Amino acid sequence: MANANVNCWPLIVIGGSSERRQETMGAFQEFPQVEACRLYCKFSARPSSIETIPSIIEKAVRSSIYGRPGPCYVDIPADFVNFQVNVNSIKYMECCLPPPVSMAETSAVYMAASVLRNAKRPLLIIGKGAAYSRAEEAIRKLVGQCKLPFLPTPMGKGVVPDNHPNCVSAARSRALQFADVIVLFGARLNWILHFGLPPRYQPDVKFIQVDICAEELGNNVKPAVSLLGDINAVTKQLLEQFDKTPWQYPAESSWWQTLREKMESNEAASKELASQKSLPMNYYTVFYQVQEQLPRDCFVVSEGANTMDIGRTVIQNYLPRHRLDAGTFGTMGVGLGFAIAAAIVARDRNPGKRVICVEGDSAFGFSGMEVETICRYNLPIVLLVVNNNGIYQGFDADTWKEMLKFGDATEVAPPVCLLPNSHYEQVMTAFGGKGYFVETPEELQKSLRESLADTTKPSLINIMIEPQATRKAQDFHWLTRSNM
Amino acid sequence: MANANVNCWPLIVIGGSSERRQETMGAFQEFPQVEACRLYCKFSARPSSIETIPSIIEKAVRSSIYGRPGPCYVDIPADFVNFQVNVNSIKYMECCLPPPVSMAETSAVYMAASVLRNAKRPLLIIGKGAAYSRAEEAIRKLVGQCKLPFLPTPMGKGVVPDNHPNCVSAARSRALQFADVIVLFGARLNWILHFGLPPRYQPDVKFIQVDICAEELGNNVKPAVSLLGDINAVTKQLLEQFDKTPWQYPAESSWWQTLREKMESNEAASKELASQKSLPMNYYTVFYQVQEQLPRDCFVVSEGANTMDIGRTVIQNYLPRHRLDAGTFGTMGVGLGFAIAAAIVARDRNPGKRVICVEGDSAFGFSGMEVETICRYNLPIVLLVVNNNGIYQGFDADTWKEMLKFGDATEVAPPVCLLPNSHYEQVMTAFGGKGYFVETPEELQKSLRESLADTTKPSLINIMIEPQATRKAQDFHWLTRSNM
Amino acid sequence: MANANVNCWPLIVIGGSSERRQETMGAFQEFPQVEACRLYCKFSARPSSIETIPSIIEKAVRSSIYGRPGPCYVDIPADFVNFQVNVNSIKYMECCLPPPVSMAETSAVYMAASVLRNAKRPLLIIGKGAAYSRAEEAIRKLVGQCKLPFLPTPMGKGVVPDNHPNCVSAARSRALQFADVIVLFGARLNWILHFGLPPRYQPDVKFIQVDICAEELGNNVKPAVSLLGDINAVTKQLLEQFDKTPWQYPAESSWWQTLREKMESNEAASKELASQKSLPMNYYTVFYQVQEQLPRDCFVVSEGANTMDIGRTVIQNYLPRHRLDAGTFGTMGVGLGFAIAAAIVARDRNPGKRVICVEGDSAFGFSGMEVETICRYNLPIVLLVVNNNGIYQGFDADTWKEMLKFGDATEVAPPVCLLPNSHYEQVMTAFGGKGYFVETPEELQKSLRESLADTTKPSLINIMIEPQATRKAQDFHWLTRSNM
Amino acid sequence: MANANVNCWPLIVIGGSSERRQETMGAFQEFPQVEACRLYCKFSARPSSIETIPSIIEKAVRSSIYGRPGPCYVDIPADFVNFQVNVNSIKYMECCLPPPVSMAETSAVYMAASVLRNAKRPLLIIGKGAAYSRAEEAIRKLVGQCKLPFLPTPMGKGVVPDNHPNCVSAARSRALQFADVIVLFGARLNWILHFGLPPRYQPDVKFIQVDICAEELGNNVKPAVSLLGDINAVTKQLLEQFDKTPWQYPAESSWWQTLREKMESNEAASKELASQKSLPMNYYTVFYQVQEQLPRDCFVVSEGANTMDIGRTVIQNYLPRHRLDAGTFGTMGVGLGFAIAAAIVARDRNPGKRVICVEGDSAFGFSGMEVETICRYNLPIVLLVVNNNGIYQGFDADTWKEMLKFGDATEVAPPVCLLPNSHYEQVMTAFGGKGYFVETPEELQKSLRESLADTTKPSLINIMIEPQATRKAQDFHWLTRSNM
Repeated sequence: MANANVNCWPLIVIGGSSERRQETMGAFQEFPQVEACRLYCKFSARPSSIETIPSIIEKAVRSSIYGRPGPCYVDIPADFVNFQVNVNSIKYMECCLPPPVSMAETSAVYMAASVLRNAKRPLLIIGKGAAYSRAEEAIRKLVGQCKLPFLPTPMGKGVVPDNHPNCVSAARSRALQFADVIVLFGARLNWILHFGLPPRYQPDVKFIQVDICAEELGNNVKPAVSLLGDINAVTKQLLEQFDKTPWQYPAESSWWQTLREKMESNEAASKELASQKSLPMNYYTVFYQVQEQLPRDCFVVSEGANTMDIGRTVIQNYLPRHRLDAGTFGTMGVGLGFAIAAAIVARDRNPGKRVICVEGDSAFGFSGMEVETICRYNLPIVLLVVNNNGIYQGFDADTWKEMLKFGDATEVAPPVCLLPNSHYEQVMTAFGGKGYFVETPEELQKSLRESLADTTKPSLINIMIEPQATRKAQDFHWLTRSNM
Repeated sequence: MANANVNCWPLIVIGGSSERRQETMGAFQEFPQVEACRLYCKFSARPSSIETIPSIIEKAVRSSIYGRPGPCYVDIPADFVNFQVNVNSIKYMECCLPPPVSMAETSAVYMAASVLRNAKRPLLIIGKGAAYSRAEEAIRKLVGQCKLPFLPTPMGKGVVPDNHPNCVSAARSRALQFADVIVLFGARLNWILHFGLPPRYQPDVKFIQVDICAEELGNNVKPAVSLLGDINAVTKQLLEQFDKTPWQYPAESSWWQTLREKMESNEAASKELASQKSLPMNYYTVFYQVQEQLPRDCFVVSEGANTMDIGRTVIQNYLPRHRLDAGTFGTMGVGLGFAIAAAIVARDRNPGKRVICVEGDSAFGFSGMEVETICRYNLPIVLLVVNNNGIYQGFDADTWKEMLKFGDATEVAPPVCLLPNSHYEQVMTAFGGKGYFVETPEELQKSLRESLADTTKPSLINIMIEPQATRKAQDFHWLTRSNM
Repeated sequence: MANANVNCWPLIVIGGSSERRQETMGAFQEFPQVEACRLYCKFSARPSSIETIPSIIEKAVRSSIYGRPGPCYVDIPADFVNFQVNVNSIKYMECCLPPPVSMAETSAVYMAASVLRNAKRPLLIIGKGAAYSRAEEAIRKLVGQCKLPFLPTPMGKGVVPDNHPNCVSAARSRALQFADVIVLFGARLNWILHFGLPPRYQPDVKFIQVDICAEELGNNVKPAVSLLGDINAVTKQLLEQFDKTPWQYPAESSWWQTLREKMESNEAASKELASQKSLPMNYYTVFYQVQEQLPRDCFVVSEGANTMDIGRTVIQNYLPRHRLDAGTFGTMGVGLGFAIAAAIVARDRNPGKRVICVEGDSAFGFSGMEVETICRYNLPIVLLVVNNNGIYQGFDADTWKEMLKFGDATEVAPPVCLLPNSHYEQVMTAFGGKGYFVETPEELQKSLRESLADTTKPSLINIMIEPQATRKAQDFHWLTRSNM
Repeated sequence: MANANVNCWPLIVIGGSSERRQETMGAFQEFPQVEACRLYCKFSARPSSIETIPSIIEKAVRSSIYGRPGPCYVDIPADFVNFQVNVNSIKYMECCLPPPVSMAETSAVYMAASVLRNAKRPLLIIGKGAAYSRAEEAIRKLVGQCKLPFLPTPMGKGVVPDNHPNCVSAARSRALQFADVIVLFGARLNWILHFGLPPRYQPDVKFIQVDICAEELGNNVKPAVSLLGDINAVTKQLLEQFDKTPWQYPAESSWWQTLREKMESNEAASKELASQKSLPMNYYTVFYQVQEQLPRDCFVVSEGANTMDIGRTVIQNYLPRHRLDAGTFGTMGVGLGFAIAAAIVARDRNPGKRVICVEGDSAFGFSGMEVETICRYNLPIVLLVVNNNGIYQGFDADTWKEMLKFGDATEVAPPVCLLPNSHYEQVMTAFGGKGYFVETPEELQKSLRESLADTTKPSLINIMIEPQATRKAQDFHWLTRSNM
């Protein structure tokens, strides 16, 4: 699948299953795996014979990358593994062609451009669909040419660089709440975007949806315009409209003014937090230090609760498809696997490109043992564990000891608490990587500098922060209530 | 859903389920229905409350008609039926917009036109996707302008009228076998089209696939060109190419010559069979009689084995979406339901338009009791039961009696045999409709004339044919082996 | 499976599926059938090869009859049908042994006997589990020896004959409502028994559950005693207790008195209805006529709404496993298939034994075409269609005509109405059976007498009853609200 | 569930799901969880309201422990968590009664005793079903009284102590291969017991199956006798037979002689391996050291490949339900969770009782991070990691370095290799527990002694063994081919 035209990587799980002749007999790990994968996969099948394996793999790969991408499952029974067949009986299949590209209806594109031209408070939302379709060049051009404010979703970060002057991430809530026209580039109106409904949005906001998946269009809201097609192709269609009849959104509008004001005050608040000298550090102090040193072209992997959420606002992406986080499902435990995959890709295609994995302490606990794999493959991943001794909140070691006087940990500590001051860095040194336990900005700077300088080894920086640290206050109560 | 822009009708099944508070208690007909429908539906859900019913229905309708159309299921628990809620708590939803239309990539369209221009033995295959997308005007224009031979699939019949001079249905096998370039308009390369593989096709045939479903592209074969998009929109894109650089396939090519020769010999053979005077009649005699009298704009519903297969070759469609048969799944028992639905649509939208339902005797047995519904609603459907006393083959009454001397019917008769000379017409007269038992072409003509003349009542014509009748001989053994 | 020791018949569905090598290619009727059957079956599997077919069939049969019986599915791909294998490679399997029998714990049996001895208002409920386990001899002995009132469930009818003096079916509601100790023999506390909860039962009623299925014990109620085991074996254990320490429930108790009073008044009300001379007839008139003529050993098949419910109270069963009705799920359309199966069994094992199939008009509509099968096999089934022109209620022909003046049937008639005066008997004569259209008790008597006298042919008696006929009034409003 | 009569612990998973009103909208982690759990659970349901939670929990608990035990799933939507209801609207449910007990049919018990009495080479196999049903007292009595050889399955170990003179584990293959009568106490004839088929068994071996699950009886083989019922109750029934007519299997039989010879030679071979002085150590050396020091009443948890398989043969169990290993499914990653659960139970019910967790290095990698939980709860678990640098086989550090000269680890090392000399003990010290890296028998002895002596802290002993170490040679090739 080395074809540069391929929009996204196929996600195929090949599973081993028990010998076919032992089925229903109580074979080792006998289970209806194809059936069990049905709910999770676009395609789930077992080849009926060794001869059909190539065509089943072709179908799995094609299903995975054509249309809206998704995972596929292929089941290989144990008896296939050592079975021999005549090589001539195998019908080898070439890999499928790159995914076919579709475009939106011309009249709908025209209407979309027209709605956008008439917007008073426009906003572009750039989703992971835009990244999958490699629409970065087209979308950057659109943003630049039309001078429109934009907001990336977590996995859409980097399609346009986060430090682009039109990025209004720092005024996210305000941008969503007051926009009158929103163009969604491959972003679903699910919980991450609060379903597109009031009070997070104006009741009469006009959505222009650009999506590869027809069934997604009109979901939860009735869009003003639906543009069905490949996001890159459709963005180019929009650009043609604005080439024919040039237009740009005025930089001096009151909308830009209100957004900029909010961005400035939010950034000031963040910086204020980041500059606090008290110890243990808070999230903002940590992430500003990290942001300063990160190479612009690195992969950023992240998972956790506050760690992922606050980290996302501070750590910037400059390239598309370079941020991997827990995604729509918020599944914890995916970070180290993502980091390993990214590091292999980097090693094979972009030697020197680094992978930084920013983990909450709880998230790290899900699959922290993968550091063995990292060390075995000698992948120079820089792992940061942002350690507040718990999920959302923990306790410091002294408070913890006090509590334990009244009972044991299973009885007194809330289930969101972790052991205080866990030395996660030793999980790395146990396998030969480098470990750092840092408590001050200076230690953090130094360890980060060393880790990034060393391209031969993985390292883990265990960063102690204030156990009760949280994000900065929100304007409205409903901003803290999740996904209202 | 009266919007004329809507490409296809949503197919939503609303199911009643047991009271929620009795779930797991052994309630009346308690079953996980939403789960049971998952494998069959694009969307299967139970509203979580009465308040959410409108939005769930909207999602079901939209899912059913957006993208590749398909059925959806909505589950309504018994306790919702009589429960009262404050009308203001209901968030009413408008119906979704007409399905968004997508077009193929311009470069792919160009390439498709180029491949077609260079074809030596081109063929268009018109599938039900073309009918769903209402592409008839565009495809008729393409056929006429470029002088291309075409072949409809069973449900694609009528997109271009069957009597169009370029229709090569009468040389179907030859057309498939020797074409060097085939354009598929919304037709899948499944068993109906023999998977697109040799020996039914040339090993190096070039397929140009036009489809709304990305995952269908490249399935079983590697296409020369994939055109992803709405079939109507993509056909118009192709037409633009041929408008820019006009081209037509030469009428005097050896390909047209071989096709026409085959068509003529096949049609001659059919007519020869149709004109046989021996009694009982054969299939061809029956269908030629029927074809002569059918109104051009009628709905033709059909199911059965030989009845459906042979009937399809003789009975012509002149309008798209006017043939309803057992379809890809070959499910028997759907005919009378289809006929009732078509008759309701005809009554409400095209008063005077007739519905003719051509049933095999076995197929009629699956849901023949629906004649009660037909009579109750007084729908002037003309039901033909082509009765050969069995599936594929039966016995005449005398042979049957001889056989029974050696045992009872459960032991001696093959399972494909039905009771000889069943008087299906009495199933109609039992409910007040008109019934005819016909054994000769003359009786058939007369009864058909009467049935079509009477717009006030349903009628059923029970047509006795030769119990051992079958289709005319095929050229190759593998044409009779199903779907090789 | 001719072994007389086998408690119940295996229910195995063998399904054909598409050729394995065409799977995922769009084969004819390709579908994940094994997976689709999972929710409905105890065992659902496809043999991995022809060689494994015998062992898979053995597993299906065994799973179907061991433990709580249930259906199983075996999938046979098309390519197995004509494939040849070396006969020596097949490992033939003998049929499994008869189901193993388990008994209840001795102490629990002792406790159950003790609770029963101390009951003031005892009641036995005999469910279909008792019939499946062939417990009739033991339960009849228990009823007779201990003089206990009993109530059969619909499918438990005949384990003890309905005309046994201790049968309190005619006082069902009262018996349930006031019993203080209830022994359930293979009857679940589902909707049919109102979940075992007030107001249909005393809040402190003590249930003694006898069941083969552990997970059923304690469902919805907390039983006083649970007896896990084969119902026949457990009943014998109970009998042993009453043999050791004989006991009988006093015939002159006030409980027997209240039950008998209620039975007499209910029977009097039924007879009063049955003797009404007005025409059209009501349900009771019809069923009393039928009951008078039915052979004692016939199979009674029944489905419908009022037809099944009222018919069950009047038509008596004298033998176990001789009533087949729509059962727990209340699925309509099963009647004719049941009747055919019963008739084949009767023909092969009890020549002369008759099958009577009592259908509501709506129920008959689901699979009425099966009369073709009945006629083809020449099974002397007597089909009664109790015809009130609708489900629960219909209209007479004159009212219907009046209504139609205001619109067509699809608009004015409630969906529960059927065409008035349908001549269902002609559906039988269409295939050579005998048909009767009867409107008076005398015609009913005569046609029934003729039908029962003729053992060479099937017949169908279409019995017109009052379209608005319903059951007799209930004592409490919550007796008419279903399954409160 | 503190009731001492309860045979086994319910296994209920309570899962949180998204808010009901957001279903189908793309809610946070929205997924059909109840449906996804169906294949894995005996009961999977979502309460329809807060009011029904208690009854659903009751059903889940009851389903989990009645009949053959198994897991159940209950789904709690997010909106239930903070929703308030009137406490009086809740119908609280008491916990279900202890599981009902059933016994085998008396005649079958008699036949089983008779078959056993006539056995020439009898064998008892004690499965986990015997442990679940708490049949230890009865089975120990049977073994002792009848002097029968027995073999425990992995989870059946300890029902009779492993050091019982009649335990023939050390001659397992021979015992299975030549026995002529085998009594299975709650052990399935699945892959663990080689399906009960030749060549692992005599073709005419007579199985007597004792099982709580009817459908398991006769699976894969046709048993001589099936005893359906609670294993404890049925064993008592067998004892009654041998009380009535005492019998014991002669201690001087040739069967006992052949078994004892094989046991002695196998034990000698193991001891020979165990006493090898070469370093790194082999498996047997390690496990003999461990076995010597383990407290008799400790819980042994184990998972891994050779570690679990060889460890099981050396480390003895003296109490039932005190061994927890990867079980029938061989699922890796369960060990630490099992150890934590066992340690909580020990702490609460048997203060002082220890938990020893014997992990392969690969198995530890699946959930090694659970040491954080162990340390947080301060559970004095003794974790042994038997470290051969791989799955089945690894490489030593020097070989590893040599290999890496030819490429990176992802290319040259087989996927079953792990990083050599991983310091797993540091994963424990990272969280404050005690860690040991041991390379010699003496170091192992010392660290084990210390760990067992310290009841206040968890410890992890990382035991380096020969990377190419494997089990001792088998007699027949088919003993090493898995589960032939």
